Parts: sequence; C-alpha cells; structure tokens
Amino acid sequence: MKITNFRAVEAREVDEPGAKGVKVRWLISEKDGAPNFAMRLFEMEPGGHTPYHKHEWEHEVFVLKGKGDLVTEGNISPLNEGDALLVPADENHQFKNTSEEAFIFLCMIPHRK
Amino acid sequence: MKITNFRAVEAREVDEPGAKGVKVRWLISEKDGAPNFAMRLFEMEPGGHTPYHKHEWEHEVFVLKGKGDLVTEGNISPLNEGDALLVPADENHQFKNTSEEAFIFLCMIPHRK
Repeated sequence: MKITNFRAVEAREVDEPGAKGVKVRWLISEKDGAPNFAMRLFEMEPGGHTPYHKHEWEHEVFVLKGKGDLVTEGNISPLNEGDALLVPADENHQFKNTSEEAFIFLCMIPHRK
Repeated sequence: MKITNFRAVEAREVDEPGAKGVKVRWLISEKDGAPNFAMRLFEMEPGGHTPYHKHEWEHEVFVLKGKGDLVTEGNISPLNEGDALLVPADENHQFKNTSEEAFIFLCMIPHRK
C-alpha cells in the first residue's frame, strides 16, 4: 500500500532532447511494487512541450488542468481538463502547452519488459 | 488514438454487492485498443462506498475531487484531492465518501489475462 499526495513527490525537469519547460513526478512506479504500469504527473509551463517522438509503449493520459495540444502525424488535437486519451505504441506524438497557465496531466505507461 | 472527455462517457451504476451510490465511467479499455491496462473514473455520492473486498489485481488510484477514506485490514486512511495510491493485489480494501460532496477518483487496473 502506498498513498502519497502528488505535491509531496519531487518534480524533476525532463531533460530529454526536444523537451522544454516540463517537469515530471513519478507517483507510482516499479519501486513501489506496482506490478504492471506506472503513474506519472507532468506539469508543463506556458510555451513548454514534450519531444515529438514515438516509442514501443502506449500512453494513457488524463488532463487535470490547463489547455494543450496533442500533435500527431498530420493532426493537432486540442486537450482540455477532463480529457482522457490513449496514444498507441509506435505513433509519433507531442504534447504542447497552448495556454498562459500550467498544463498538468497524468500519464500512465506499462513497465518495460 | 482515442480522445474523449470523461463527461461524454456513460456513467453506469456499480451494482456489485456491497457497493452503494457509486457510478463508473470506463474511459479507456481493451475495446479502445489499450494493450495493457484500463482507466476508469468513479464518482461516489455522499454516504457512498465500494464493496469491502479483495481480488487478484492491483489498483492505481488518483483522487480528482472530494474526500474519502480507504479502508484496509486494520487501517483507515483519509484520501484527499491529489492523492495517488497503489492498492496491491490480494489486499482487502474499500473506498468510502466521507464528505458532503461527490468523491471522484481515477482507478487504473491491468487487463485480466
């Protein structure tokens, strides 16, 4: 059993190439004994974005606060509070903050095998 | 790719024995092509609760709104907005709304194999 408020978890700058103004808090991970997937909380400054990239695992995302865009191949989808989204494996994607406030979302990923 | 606001997803009464005043919205599931785990949003009325039970899969929970209790064997933990929790497999647990407002949380579970 683990219970923690997200505010008590360290926010680390995402230093991956192509990321700007993004911090991540790993709320639940393998270290906590989670057997299948991890829960992270991302906070993005105005003007911030994640890399435009793809990888072998899916994302399940829930938007907690703010407004952003999900950029995919040939498409831009606006994101708002309360949106849930599935980004399939092996599809290019990028999250951007399009507002003047923080853009905050949960992003769950399966553990790498 | 799936994007949906939780408000657009049908809220179904949880009719499992021991549940009271609880609705669930399945935001992302196997039907959407999610390969590993599902995202559900639970909304609990004041006085509502889930069954006190255990099962073979874990929960990863994030509290969106309201206040509740997590009841486990020999323990009661208060839950508040922004709390993230891991309920391990095979441990008895129950969620209760202890406030006068709706208690709303996300609950992710692995697909059953």
